[in-house]
Amino acid sequence: MHIEVLISPSPISPASPHSRPDVGALATFTGLVRGSENDLPISALVYEAYQPMAEIVMHRLLTELAAAHPCHSVFVQHRIGVVPVGETAIHIAIQARHRAPAFALLAAFMDRLKQDVPIWKTDTLS
Amino acid sequence: MHIEVLISPSPISPASPHSRPDVGALATFTGLVRGSENDLPISALVYEAYQPMAEIVMHRLLTELAAAHPCHSVFVQHRIGVVPVGETAIHIAIQARHRAPAFALLAAFMDRLKQDVPIWKTDTLS
Repeated sequence: MHIEVLISPSPISPASPHSRPDVGALATFTGLVRGSENDLPISALVYEAYQPMAEIVMHRLLTELAAAHPCHSVFVQHRIGVVPVGETAIHIAIQARHRAPAFALLAAFMDRLKQDVPIWKTDTLS
Repeated sequence: MHIEVLISPSPISPASPHSRPDVGALATFTGLVRGSENDLPISALVYEAYQPMAEIVMHRLLTELAAAHPCHSVFVQHRIGVVPVGETAIHIAIQARHRAPAFALLAAFMDRLKQDVPIWKTDTLS
């Protein structure tokens, strides 16, 4: 499986890997900053990462999960720093032959991301 | 839940509903025509629909599924007619507060689509 992981303070432009004739399914997830956190209005969230380790752990996690859910490619973009309300904190694009492994890999990766990957939502600005 | 369904012979430009500050999750699925069907090379698939009924049934199905998986909005685009290899036959975009109902609605809708909705993959061109 082809894996690309990009962690950056730049705004995310959702991107997908190049299409291939054996790709029948593209599943994506975009995580956006909502205007409230614990029922209090916020203007942004702040994400901090131990960046080299976060990239290594994401690669390792995706490789592990792909053994159970074989896909062609995964592209993960995670923004760090201040992410204003309405903007994208994470975008994931998964290509596969069929939709089932793409959906399964996407859900499993998101479930494991917060547990395993050293990225913290450290603060909110009201 | 806001529901939009579009069935058309025009090529699909993946589109999502406008963002809202209470949307934390956008899940999408794109179904593309693969270059082979049952191990034989093809150049396109042909989709036929009983269009007014297909739109009504999709609306009804999404409303039914949203009771179990509450989301903010769903936008479904389905192409009919000749869809060449590498092009999009269906695109679905689901917005929700959190990712779990968006993933669940997306998977459930795709599972039910082929059973319930009068759209047929009628032919392949070799």
